[in-house]
Amino acid sequence: MVGGGRDAFIGRVHRHAMALDARFDLVAGALSSQPEKALASGRDLGLRDERNHGSWQALLDHELSLPAEERVQVVAIVTPNHLHHEIALAFVEAGFHVVCDKPLVHTSEQADALVRAVARRGTVFGVTYNYGGYPMVRQAREMVRQGAIGEIRKVVVEYHQGWLATPLEGGNKQADWRTDPARSGIAGAIGDIGSHAENLAATVTGLEIESLCAELRTVVPGRRLDDDASVLLRFRGGAAGVLLASQIAAGCENDLRLRVFGSEGSLDWRQEDPNVLIHAPLAAPRQVLTRGSPWLSEAAQRACRIPAGHPEAFLEAFANIYRGVAADIDARLAGVAADPLDADYPHVEDGARGVRFIETVVASANSEARWTPI
Amino acid sequence: MVGGGRDAFIGRVHRHAMALDARFDLVAGALSSQPEKALASGRDLGLRDERNHGSWQALLDHELSLPAEERVQVVAIVTPNHLHHEIALAFVEAGFHVVCDKPLVHTSEQADALVRAVARRGTVFGVTYNYGGYPMVRQAREMVRQGAIGEIRKVVVEYHQGWLATPLEGGNKQADWRTDPARSGIAGAIGDIGSHAENLAATVTGLEIESLCAELRTVVPGRRLDDDASVLLRFRGGAAGVLLASQIAAGCENDLRLRVFGSEGSLDWRQEDPNVLIHAPLAAPRQVLTRGSPWLSEAAQRACRIPAGHPEAFLEAFANIYRGVAADIDARLAGVAADPLDADYPHVEDGARGVRFIETVVASANSEARWTPI
Amino acid sequence: MVGGGRDAFIGRVHRHAMALDARFDLVAGALSSQPEKALASGRDLGLRDERNHGSWQALLDHELSLPAEERVQVVAIVTPNHLHHEIALAFVEAGFHVVCDKPLVHTSEQADALVRAVARRGTVFGVTYNYGGYPMVRQAREMVRQGAIGEIRKVVVEYHQGWLATPLEGGNKQADWRTDPARSGIAGAIGDIGSHAENLAATVTGLEIESLCAELRTVVPGRRLDDDASVLLRFRGGAAGVLLASQIAAGCENDLRLRVFGSEGSLDWRQEDPNVLIHAPLAAPRQVLTRGSPWLSEAAQRACRIPAGHPEAFLEAFANIYRGVAADIDARLAGVAADPLDADYPHVEDGARGVRFIETVVASANSEARWTPI
Amino acid sequence: MVGGGRDAFIGRVHRHAMALDARFDLVAGALSSQPEKALASGRDLGLRDERNHGSWQALLDHELSLPAEERVQVVAIVTPNHLHHEIALAFVEAGFHVVCDKPLVHTSEQADALVRAVARRGTVFGVTYNYGGYPMVRQAREMVRQGAIGEIRKVVVEYHQGWLATPLEGGNKQADWRTDPARSGIAGAIGDIGSHAENLAATVTGLEIESLCAELRTVVPGRRLDDDASVLLRFRGGAAGVLLASQIAAGCENDLRLRVFGSEGSLDWRQEDPNVLIHAPLAAPRQVLTRGSPWLSEAAQRACRIPAGHPEAFLEAFANIYRGVAADIDARLAGVAADPLDADYPHVEDGARGVRFIETVVASANSEARWTPI
Repeated sequence: MVGGGRDAFIGRVHRHAMALDARFDLVAGALSSQPEKALASGRDLGLRDERNHGSWQALLDHELSLPAEERVQVVAIVTPNHLHHEIALAFVEAGFHVVCDKPLVHTSEQADALVRAVARRGTVFGVTYNYGGYPMVRQAREMVRQGAIGEIRKVVVEYHQGWLATPLEGGNKQADWRTDPARSGIAGAIGDIGSHAENLAATVTGLEIESLCAELRTVVPGRRLDDDASVLLRFRGGAAGVLLASQIAAGCENDLRLRVFGSEGSLDWRQEDPNVLIHAPLAAPRQVLTRGSPWLSEAAQRACRIPAGHPEAFLEAFANIYRGVAADIDARLAGVAADPLDADYPHVEDGARGVRFIETVVASANSEARWTPI
Repeated sequence: MVGGGRDAFIGRVHRHAMALDARFDLVAGALSSQPEKALASGRDLGLRDERNHGSWQALLDHELSLPAEERVQVVAIVTPNHLHHEIALAFVEAGFHVVCDKPLVHTSEQADALVRAVARRGTVFGVTYNYGGYPMVRQAREMVRQGAIGEIRKVVVEYHQGWLATPLEGGNKQADWRTDPARSGIAGAIGDIGSHAENLAATVTGLEIESLCAELRTVVPGRRLDDDASVLLRFRGGAAGVLLASQIAAGCENDLRLRVFGSEGSLDWRQEDPNVLIHAPLAAPRQVLTRGSPWLSEAAQRACRIPAGHPEAFLEAFANIYRGVAADIDARLAGVAADPLDADYPHVEDGARGVRFIETVVASANSEARWTPI
Repeated sequence: MVGGGRDAFIGRVHRHAMALDARFDLVAGALSSQPEKALASGRDLGLRDERNHGSWQALLDHELSLPAEERVQVVAIVTPNHLHHEIALAFVEAGFHVVCDKPLVHTSEQADALVRAVARRGTVFGVTYNYGGYPMVRQAREMVRQGAIGEIRKVVVEYHQGWLATPLEGGNKQADWRTDPARSGIAGAIGDIGSHAENLAATVTGLEIESLCAELRTVVPGRRLDDDASVLLRFRGGAAGVLLASQIAAGCENDLRLRVFGSEGSLDWRQEDPNVLIHAPLAAPRQVLTRGSPWLSEAAQRACRIPAGHPEAFLEAFANIYRGVAADIDARLAGVAADPLDADYPHVEDGARGVRFIETVVASANSEARWTPI
Repeated sequence: MVGGGRDAFIGRVHRHAMALDARFDLVAGALSSQPEKALASGRDLGLRDERNHGSWQALLDHELSLPAEERVQVVAIVTPNHLHHEIALAFVEAGFHVVCDKPLVHTSEQADALVRAVARRGTVFGVTYNYGGYPMVRQAREMVRQGAIGEIRKVVVEYHQGWLATPLEGGNKQADWRTDPARSGIAGAIGDIGSHAENLAATVTGLEIESLCAELRTVVPGRRLDDDASVLLRFRGGAAGVLLASQIAAGCENDLRLRVFGSEGSLDWRQEDPNVLIHAPLAAPRQVLTRGSPWLSEAAQRACRIPAGHPEAFLEAFANIYRGVAADIDARLAGVAADPLDADYPHVEDGARGVRFIETVVASANSEARWTPI
């Protein structure tokens, strides 16, 4: 693991997600860009000294010095965004499988370079757009694929958080780096959570955004990046959409919701009530589909660990991304094609698409044109 | 009553709303533009023959022929939209109080003419933007006024219906006139329900839209007016907003929802669960405010008839508009100023603002410009 | 109307319910047992002096002095419970149709006498167990009848209110008479709201209680009647049930809920969300049935006034009881059999069953026996 | 681990729960009472051959043959109920810490023997009444302790499942042993899930049941144990309660809900929506308390891993029991007193109380007496 030291939020999430199914062992790390903190964090987690490093370069060098069969199989990159590119590229080039947090990198040039490197080296590369790991999101995706709601007409995806409704910068570690252009890139809320919303919509609908019209605002005085975004979307093929992402939505916690309206019905899913998917057919009562039910698709079933009524949640969904990566690595080790229902996780291309989405939103927000193509 | 004959949806609603508090008696009518149907409808409702008319002109003439004290006090206009202007203007000019359905008229010229006529004659003129009649909407309005959520930053208002997801035109009376430009004017969904959303947002927030960026679409093939609208809003003073109005949202019934995010908290209200208002303060647990509770504002209390837990709904809210009109008429008869908490209803100016909103949305949708001022 | 003067809660509800569909005119009354208050209340409501009486006896005498065709057709009795018997019996014996509030009377002897009188005189007699007037309750009843949930196995009905969680007696008019044995009879919460729960369960399931085991408690110190009841039920045919009724359930408003579990599925309805009925089939996703939907039963459809998504609530349901009474009276006037889907309201026999239920609960609570037959 | 082989539901849950926080390694096991299956299951999980056993006795013998510092620290017992007693006693007597599934044992004699053994050996003994591991249950417990709802008056706890609504016996492994008196003891639903309900109520309220009046039924023909229970409760100190436990509640998944009504307010928690606790103060709006919020009690905060809005669920709550056991073991290893907020888990005494509850319910159900003391 690179990044994720003491006080890091997302590193801890990754570690729980890895641990849950006992398919990963954390054996080496460079857990912070500050060497002292990195080493202390590694000791907290029980890393052996020789595999506990003060920098990612030292980690990489040491791993490469080991015989191939003793090296780590996969590297989780959970640093702030601005470091993703260099680290990910180095590990991919060195032949390691990678799990990288999102947004993938800062620019589409960086993203394309990474896509090419992964293709060249043939490594596994997962991006933790974790919301697609929820069983009921996979159920929604399968229902769309199988035509349960007909042709898609309108997509409404919203991601409301309120934790940045006040100026937390200067003290709150999460707030600090997420609103710092040097570390977060050109985008604030639209990068941090808007790209999750984009990924969720793309995952479920399979639609591609053709052009968009975005308004980005910085609501809290003194903030250096956007904290509120409203985007009109046009998809290839004629569907339309709206994407809202706000971190100043006072009173909201992590309110990601996707509604997809088709010619034959609609689907509605909310991250804060993730075991439920509402399916409203055009001419029959609304149905409440629940995780773990026998009538779900195979893709959704495989994403469940325990029966209906025993809720699974954020960490389990996150772990499903790791499980997908593990299945893909296992298949490669076994020299077979992975079962796509097992090796089900966002790839480097999904990460690259997210980067282009963010770039286009920012371009649109700075443009006089009504529609900006993606 | 003018309009609202057999099979009319909204006429029936108005009659229930009038009846509920026993403050109105329906004594005269011209209930359809088809004379035969008008008369038959009037007989159904027990109108006496001499006050049951085949045309609104006949109704007006007959009323004017009566001694002033025998005339109707107020005329409810519930015809399709294209007739509102001529009829409303005639009755106002003749000195009658009027309740008119929404949207008020087709053009802002017509609206302005009506505003001037009402001002000149000093009559009461209510517009049945009925959702503002809900007690918890009034509670939200009062809370905003009293600063409970601080300065407003973002407004999200959405009105999703699914009943026009298929081409009902040609048979369904409601679908027929609502999608007919001759009767509905330049706007479909944005006029029929989008203007309700605009009114709800304006009522609660008190904010004025400065400019907007609208996408109007006609999704169902062959339809002649828009059936899906997505609008970005900028309010005077710096707040932003999003307004969605769709009649092709399969699986939705009458899903009007308003969320207002301020610097100190947020409010959330849904028409399909109207006895509840969610108030999320910035730094305290979310509160579930319920109709009838003793801690509500006076304005909300007065809009209730029965105790908490005994739900009131659509007709009661509609009746509150009529109750407001009655209070205003009573005050004028008594020669006193009406208590504004009693005489609480949308005025002709609110109707005119709604017409300008619709016009601006349609102009924006046809424009290359990013923002169209209102 | 007898009873229902100034400050009366239920009288006002009855008047709104009568008014809503414009099928009743309030023309005569004895609105309080205190003559002065009765007359003042009648003046408030616009009763003409000669039909505004200081006592129910005066009202009855005066009506009988009128030619039959000028008399009121139906008398609404909305006094405190202890007066129901004498007044109802007198009006029935005199040949008037009656709507009487619940619980019907204090003792089963009184109830039986009333049943016999109604049978003898052939009058219409409605009891305002109003919750059966909700469209989705009727839908539930029809679904049970048609076997949608198979054979009923377990019934859970609960009615939680919190308004008597503190000693309101001595000042609060509602609290005063509802906790006064002289006016409320032998039962407090179990009579006031427990009998509603019994009626709701009986209406939907059609099952008869065979025996019960009740615990009645008086929780608030100084209170003179029970304010909390828990009852185990055995139904004829083998189903079991639980009935909870509490007025000390702090934080609850009017939380009446019925769940019926059958061999093929279950139904769940809550009064505070009355437009929804949850149907969970044994082997398919839960369905959210909503008022106004085209796939509802005819019985439910007829109980609706406006389309799905435009919620109807307490007063509309109450008005449906009055509408049923009106349909029955109309049919008799026309000399035809009433359509049972129109003349759908609780009869005097339902009222009598409620009285026996209350008596049995009280007997059980005072008994050492485990089960008390009804 | 003892028990929990291939196809076992609860063994898998325990393993996820252990893994989540990376504080337990599964190093030895006897995963089934069938030796072949035990060994195969152990191989699936990567147990080394010398610590993968065909019987729990072999496991125990082998562990005792190891130097103390190489032995397992804690044994998880996840067999069917009838084996708990013998195994748990043997491991406790041998000085191992134990985590045992519930219900603890079959008889209160067995339970008392186990309590005495644990006291004698001074070992840690956790019982996986897992629902107390939910952060919002701990919040409820702390609020009760701190008087947030005043004196408790009424407790309603219900646990509805529908999976046994049909005769699954003869094929479904879970159904088979849970309805088999030889393996499940004298109780079906009341033992399997009713004891969870008892534990939840006891955990939150701190009240002791004084006596109860139970009805147990076997609804599905041919079933050998109860599948539906309704129990009236009297608590020491005067509060009353109702406990419902049913496995024939068609349409329910795992619907455990606790409501506690006090003199100053009430609390309401549902396992299927576990991140939320509703607190209704007597004279203020209902509050929606959510997991992860800064205003929660320290006990609740410590039970959270990730921020508000990122839901945690069943496995995380289960893991909190394991975390509590780990904290207790760590404290003993360190020779210090455990922080009670960390070492927060159900003890052997809670398990024993659950056994007495089950026995008393069964006794009551077979008795003519109204109340059976516990």
